[in-house]
Amino acid sequence: MLKDSRPRPKGVSESRIHNFGAGPAVLPLSVVEEVQAALPNLNNSGFGLCEISHRSATFQAVVDSAMDRIRRVLSVPEDYTILFLQGGASTQFYMTALNLMQPGERADFLETGGWSKKAVVEAKRVGEVSVIWSDSENGFRSVPSAGEYAVSEDSVYVHYTSNNTLMGTQYHDLPDSGGKPRVLDASSDIAGVPLDVSAHDLIYAGAQKNLGPSGVTLVILSPWALARAQENSDAGRLPTMLDYTVHASKGSLFNTPNTFGIFVLDCVFKWLEENGGLDGSIARNRAKSVLLYDELDRTDFWVPHAEVGARSVMNVTWRCADESLESVFLAESAAAGLGGLKGHRSVGGIRASLYNGCPIESVEALVAFMHEFAERHS
Amino acid sequence: MLKDSRPRPKGVSESRIHNFGAGPAVLPLSVVEEVQAALPNLNNSGFGLCEISHRSATFQAVVDSAMDRIRRVLSVPEDYTILFLQGGASTQFYMTALNLMQPGERADFLETGGWSKKAVVEAKRVGEVSVIWSDSENGFRSVPSAGEYAVSEDSVYVHYTSNNTLMGTQYHDLPDSGGKPRVLDASSDIAGVPLDVSAHDLIYAGAQKNLGPSGVTLVILSPWALARAQENSDAGRLPTMLDYTVHASKGSLFNTPNTFGIFVLDCVFKWLEENGGLDGSIARNRAKSVLLYDELDRTDFWVPHAEVGARSVMNVTWRCADESLESVFLAESAAAGLGGLKGHRSVGGIRASLYNGCPIESVEALVAFMHEFAERHS
Repeated sequence: MLKDSRPRPKGVSESRIHNFGAGPAVLPLSVVEEVQAALPNLNNSGFGLCEISHRSATFQAVVDSAMDRIRRVLSVPEDYTILFLQGGASTQFYMTALNLMQPGERADFLETGGWSKKAVVEAKRVGEVSVIWSDSENGFRSVPSAGEYAVSEDSVYVHYTSNNTLMGTQYHDLPDSGGKPRVLDASSDIAGVPLDVSAHDLIYAGAQKNLGPSGVTLVILSPWALARAQENSDAGRLPTMLDYTVHASKGSLFNTPNTFGIFVLDCVFKWLEENGGLDGSIARNRAKSVLLYDELDRTDFWVPHAEVGARSVMNVTWRCADESLESVFLAESAAAGLGGLKGHRSVGGIRASLYNGCPIESVEALVAFMHEFAERHS
Repeated sequence: MLKDSRPRPKGVSESRIHNFGAGPAVLPLSVVEEVQAALPNLNNSGFGLCEISHRSATFQAVVDSAMDRIRRVLSVPEDYTILFLQGGASTQFYMTALNLMQPGERADFLETGGWSKKAVVEAKRVGEVSVIWSDSENGFRSVPSAGEYAVSEDSVYVHYTSNNTLMGTQYHDLPDSGGKPRVLDASSDIAGVPLDVSAHDLIYAGAQKNLGPSGVTLVILSPWALARAQENSDAGRLPTMLDYTVHASKGSLFNTPNTFGIFVLDCVFKWLEENGGLDGSIARNRAKSVLLYDELDRTDFWVPHAEVGARSVMNVTWRCADESLESVFLAESAAAGLGGLKGHRSVGGIRASLYNGCPIESVEALVAFMHEFAERHS
């Protein structure tokens, strides 16, 4: 019954569900179709998308296009370097520290959840690490405000995670770094919320949430970050594949990159450009999250996890007041064509990810279902 | 004229060319079509191929299937571990050494081309390295025979590269390792030629030549290799993402893997199983290479690069006796729908890669073109 009555995003085949998964996450259907078309023959080259040399002019045009679009959509300063790497944010946890710190140096970390903690673990392999703020004892329900922490005098940079997928929290203001360079893990909100690239010296993001498929990592470096990497490279401290300067000097084609992933990234940024750029994306994501938070705030039936001021626009996390209803909710919502709503295994509860590719029609369907579910079980 | 008359692989759309590229390389068309179909909806899950959680049951089934097929097709011993990683062979150059050597230990390398040399460079960052054989002064036209080198008494393992894409050479016998563990870069001939996995302790292969798209790396480890990694892991010497034991303990799902790439890998191994398994693959590749070498040996118009006993089944490299004709050959062959024939930028000349996905009809078309070209220019 529910299954038949649910609304559907326009143009989406009946066989696709409303996808709220936390990543790899939903892509715009037009992007999926563009990728389908390119698979047997990329841009009329006669070579399939996965079957063309990364050194061909045809693929170089894809790389150039993706980098140009990223520079335009995210307002990346001209003297910043854009890289397409592999290994996800998990590899960047180590690689950023290895490239930016020198032996004996210190970096500061703002700890707002599981991903920040992993970044701390890897940075400790390289240098001194100070966790200058942590919300661990509060269940990671919030993010720091100015004045709640002190940047170390001797730190080289301050690292933070702009959005926390597990807990559903997000910074809504640029964190104060006491004049030090900011290093940002933006994996789960890049190109979905306001971002001042020029206020950062290194930004990294696994693509599989807001930008494309898994297996490609976007890295943006300031001249300062590249110079730091160069010093470590010159000192022989960087394995070739973990050396930003190697990838930068070859335009991300030092070795065979994830060519498929870069093409999808280009398609997603093209779609963003055709739909109002970053401003359009911000407005859509804000509207989606408002819809959902309004439902969560409407009744005590739901218990949102994040503190109001730290609520994430990308990942909305909550419990049922009666937690025994959560498994019922998950089963019934899945049957109604609402997929990927289970909370992260480390947290539990319910989570809806509203990434760039998620259309507002999906959120409308979710909210309608929630409303009906809450009435039925109240 | 030539363009209209060229033969075409059965079932291939008119718009695809005969693809001899060295990688990312041609895939069987049936695989391309299977991937196309999965993109909007993977296995009727309602989630698209690039849009489904790596932690879902649907995707776990893909991982399991791919690992099972690989174990069957390559006869991987039950106690060996199969991993799907990122970063290509270039990352493995460092990662193998980091996991298998301990500080102060030595590894031996057989140097048969550019890829072997890169592996040496990265291993030197970790421990002592002996290059116990090199064909550098002979232009890398051959591979070593038994008795041409001596394994170091104190080496931990012997590393070799089974096929050399740049030079077109290949081992046709298992190299003697003096009883030491063998570590193999099989990126460009895995699943295309005979391989005794049990005679090796670590095998790695970037997928983009014989197995699938770029961005996923197959790694196969013996219990010995995993135990060596465990010792280094326990000693805190391995960054998390460069630690084989981390990926092994999580079934390659420690972090978000290249889900798309793993799916394509599963499709390719399914296609291999449906087409005679490894034996079928070996027979097809041998037949293709015989066709082409016969044409190269037919006339002095062509000058094959590799010594006869070291000729590669996967990558055939040659020059024109009159080298000024090479650019004409490349232009005319491209116009005739024969693509990807330019030699590697470090070598020049002509190269035809005959990987698993390349049908014999493509080689027939190439040979017919070459024959006609040679007659016309003789």
